[in-house]
Amino acid sequence: MLTDLSDRAHQHESNSFRDRVWRVIFLSNTKSGKAFDIVLLWLIGLSVFVVMLESVESYHVNYPETFGLLEWTFTILFTIEYAVRIWVVRDKKAYIFSFFGIIDLLSIIPSYATLLMPHGPQFLVVVRILRLLRVFRVLKMARHLGEANLLMNAFRASLPKITVFLFFVLAVTTIMGTFMYVIEGLVAGNTGFSSMPQSIYWGIVTISTVGYGDVAPITPIGKVIASMIMLIGYGTLAVPTGIVMGEINVELAKIQPDNRKCSECGHVGHDQKAVFCKICGTKL
Amino acid sequence: MLTDLSDRAHQHESNSFRDRVWRVIFLSNTKSGKAFDIVLLWLIGLSVFVVMLESVESYHVNYPETFGLLEWTFTILFTIEYAVRIWVVRDKKAYIFSFFGIIDLLSIIPSYATLLMPHGPQFLVVVRILRLLRVFRVLKMARHLGEANLLMNAFRASLPKITVFLFFVLAVTTIMGTFMYVIEGLVAGNTGFSSMPQSIYWGIVTISTVGYGDVAPITPIGKVIASMIMLIGYGTLAVPTGIVMGEINVELAKIQPDNRKCSECGHVGHDQKAVFCKICGTKL
Amino acid sequence: MLTDLSDRAHQHESNSFRDRVWRVIFLSNTKSGKAFDIVLLWLIGLSVFVVMLESVESYHVNYPETFGLLEWTFTILFTIEYAVRIWVVRDKKAYIFSFFGIIDLLSIIPSYATLLMPHGPQFLVVVRILRLLRVFRVLKMARHLGEANLLMNAFRASLPKITVFLFFVLAVTTIMGTFMYVIEGLVAGNTGFSSMPQSIYWGIVTISTVGYGDVAPITPIGKVIASMIMLIGYGTLAVPTGIVMGEINVELAKIQPDNRKCSECGHVGHDQKAVFCKICGTKL
Amino acid sequence: MLTDLSDRAHQHESNSFRDRVWRVIFLSNTKSGKAFDIVLLWLIGLSVFVVMLESVESYHVNYPETFGLLEWTFTILFTIEYAVRIWVVRDKKAYIFSFFGIIDLLSIIPSYATLLMPHGPQFLVVVRILRLLRVFRVLKMARHLGEANLLMNAFRASLPKITVFLFFVLAVTTIMGTFMYVIEGLVAGNTGFSSMPQSIYWGIVTISTVGYGDVAPITPIGKVIASMIMLIGYGTLAVPTGIVMGEINVELAKIQPDNRKCSECGHVGHDQKAVFCKICGTKL
Repeated sequence: MLTDLSDRAHQHESNSFRDRVWRVIFLSNTKSGKAFDIVLLWLIGLSVFVVMLESVESYHVNYPETFGLLEWTFTILFTIEYAVRIWVVRDKKAYIFSFFGIIDLLSIIPSYATLLMPHGPQFLVVVRILRLLRVFRVLKMARHLGEANLLMNAFRASLPKITVFLFFVLAVTTIMGTFMYVIEGLVAGNTGFSSMPQSIYWGIVTISTVGYGDVAPITPIGKVIASMIMLIGYGTLAVPTGIVMGEINVELAKIQPDNRKCSECGHVGHDQKAVFCKICGTKL
Repeated sequence: MLTDLSDRAHQHESNSFRDRVWRVIFLSNTKSGKAFDIVLLWLIGLSVFVVMLESVESYHVNYPETFGLLEWTFTILFTIEYAVRIWVVRDKKAYIFSFFGIIDLLSIIPSYATLLMPHGPQFLVVVRILRLLRVFRVLKMARHLGEANLLMNAFRASLPKITVFLFFVLAVTTIMGTFMYVIEGLVAGNTGFSSMPQSIYWGIVTISTVGYGDVAPITPIGKVIASMIMLIGYGTLAVPTGIVMGEINVELAKIQPDNRKCSECGHVGHDQKAVFCKICGTKL
Repeated sequence: MLTDLSDRAHQHESNSFRDRVWRVIFLSNTKSGKAFDIVLLWLIGLSVFVVMLESVESYHVNYPETFGLLEWTFTILFTIEYAVRIWVVRDKKAYIFSFFGIIDLLSIIPSYATLLMPHGPQFLVVVRILRLLRVFRVLKMARHLGEANLLMNAFRASLPKITVFLFFVLAVTTIMGTFMYVIEGLVAGNTGFSSMPQSIYWGIVTISTVGYGDVAPITPIGKVIASMIMLIGYGTLAVPTGIVMGEINVELAKIQPDNRKCSECGHVGHDQKAVFCKICGTKL
Repeated sequence: MLTDLSDRAHQHESNSFRDRVWRVIFLSNTKSGKAFDIVLLWLIGLSVFVVMLESVESYHVNYPETFGLLEWTFTILFTIEYAVRIWVVRDKKAYIFSFFGIIDLLSIIPSYATLLMPHGPQFLVVVRILRLLRVFRVLKMARHLGEANLLMNAFRASLPKITVFLFFVLAVTTIMGTFMYVIEGLVAGNTGFSSMPQSIYWGIVTISTVGYGDVAPITPIGKVIASMIMLIGYGTLAVPTGIVMGEINVELAKIQPDNRKCSECGHVGHDQKAVFCKICGTKL
């Protein structure tokens, strides 16, 4: 990120071919930059879709050539893109070891790896799904998506509160899961509660209101405890909602205030009822 | 819509028989217009109910004549209505190719189609369920349903934010579904995770807290990942709620305060029942 | 209710034995009135608990005498209470045909009915569960439960909006359930989608995130549509929450404002920032 | 709690070895006090993790010595801690019979009990899971976790409202569960609805949107009633959310605004970063 920014500062003015390519690939404020982003988004989407389809056995077995061809097309295109990215970026090392640099590499390596080890483990191929993460690089640029920003800020602000809440939920689930392990597992011999981790898993499935039903209580007392967990889950589902809500309101409040600018200190973001600048005291 | 409005402007004054019929059918501000709406609502409701019942095999086999009779009654009534609508509307082409014009046609065609192809595909008959959409035409007129409006506005305003949120959720589900495909499907041989689309389907079932239970993890690691997805779903269920909430508040804020301005101190934002300015005591 | 109130007005002063009994039974502002309420709550709770236990076959078969004894104890106590209520109330007819009067009668009739028809239908006995509704009579009096009031008001205010919302949800579920009926039921032969009502039932189970799993899609397209319904359910779960929230805020806003009373017109419930009475213009 | 505080007041000044140990164990405002807390948290976490793993039969059977060794290590460490706590605390009786004193004892007793009764009931061992509760003692000290506090206050404030709400939900579930008992259990012979408690359990599973699927309606009327319960659950899930939300807002309102008062115009409620009064421009 930081490297990107310093690069940007240096390269924005210069006009060599390399720098123009850099702007197309790394920025999205020009026409060709936007076009590049859109083409890249489609390519990523398609390649992810192909990886998914290939994992379906009947397709995989019946059309091996088609999938091979498509996969190599994507791999070569992404390899070219990767090479060009390395070429145009000034601080090459910083790019290569950045989060997105590693993702870029991981999304082409599996195909080459199958050349070296044709009978290697199949799950290596699955790594290609990480291409999906490249979508976020494009989205990161298209910051016009103010919504994503707002959500991100609200999410980040409410993370500590939600973590504390989830910790409490997990503690409750552990204690209740242990009760269930004793009542259903040890006493009643319900195989779904054969161990404590298993019972806690059931507790999480229940308190989050998912309720697969692969594990369910069979004793009356077990059902009473299960009902309590359900009602707790039902009642406290509210807490993270309330937290995020509060933070979104805070975020919205930051946006909505008027954009009067103080003539003296230039401060923007005054209260709507404010008459004087709250920083330097000048009349607005 | 636009055609309707221009029609309305032209026809509101004139008083020919055709125009009076137009007002009864297309408007709902007269007594007979309202009566027509209510009769139509009942007919649509009944016809949809009959279509549903007919799809139950035991009824379908035992009472074919009754269903045939009912169906033809509805078809003839709706055909007459369709014909009258075409007759009274000025811009016939615009009506026929409008959204509701097509729905009106689609809700009568299947019955006639069975005459031409008595052994045609059964699912053609199902198209008749689209009659349900005609309910919204009646509701659209009865705009006294201010609630629907408020919800619609709040929903429309929060759609981009919710879309961004759902995109993130889908990305998380895809990555985690892929992990599960490797762990449960490839390694443990769980048939429920036999392909990536299948695993992502499971991920959506889980993160939305639906939890059918037709697919469930069997390995310890799979259960840990599943627990994480559940807690994510449980924790982020909050986000769309928060978004919609914020927008509903914005909508409510637009409605509630009246904008009377105090002639003395200029204060705006008085209570709707207020008679005097609450700041300076001047009569409003 | 109205009769109660007029009764109350008349009887509050008089001091005959009948009127004192009336105050104990129908009011809860005296010590003995509160004691009566608490005893009644316990009796109702116990009798409901006994009805529930009796429905468990093993208990029902093994301890018929115990249940018979308990049931007749409750029946006789409630019969005495019913008789006394009729005796003390002025407008007997109004009481007997009031909502709670009918519930009072229904909670004793089943026991007597079994005397007349010892081999009558068992589900008649189940009517006794309606005793539970009698709890609300006691709660209604104990209006100190301000929380119940607040919730009730917020719920009543948001009911029309929630109704409109549920109508939309049902319409979406019907249309999508029909799609699923065609794809899963007619084409793929999934017995869980054998008719349209069945498919709509599945749709409701899914969109409400309950997800029993007794009915689940088996075709890829069916799973894609199911995923869409889940995400719609997940995303729009927010809407009723937002609505109720807004109304609760409105209710809270009614309570929180300061309780300054206008010295001139006596109006209470001014805005916290108000300097002058908004009704008559007097300085507060 | 109270004893702790009075102890604290007395011991804070003195500087004997015992008092210095007391400060390390019971307070967390010194460097060594924090280090002790962190070590204790890790020990508790690890011991809980080992208890969980031991409950898995395959581990339990294959590595009995490892688990025995680990368990005795934790037991001896916690016993030393317990002894030291008793030694340093002034009011020993108050500590021993306090909530956390009992938890401290309960987390070491099971291991010693197995010495006395080597073939005693296995579920005694499960009591060790209560060690998890000791985590909250450490957390209680680390009150820097302001988030937990905020959540706790909001939760405590909304508890009465949520209780009233859950009572209504349970009443609705009981009545509807009884209907289902008659329709599905008595009439249709669905074994999942064999008794009223069983039917009410199903009702709670459904209204909380958990939906295991181990019990599901099979008759059309049963499915209609089930759909109604689901929609009620879907619609009223909002209520506790709304309640908690409101309380969290109240809590946040208590924290955020600073209460500096302008010396010139008396305005209260300035922004926390404000330097000048936003109303009259006076320096704060």
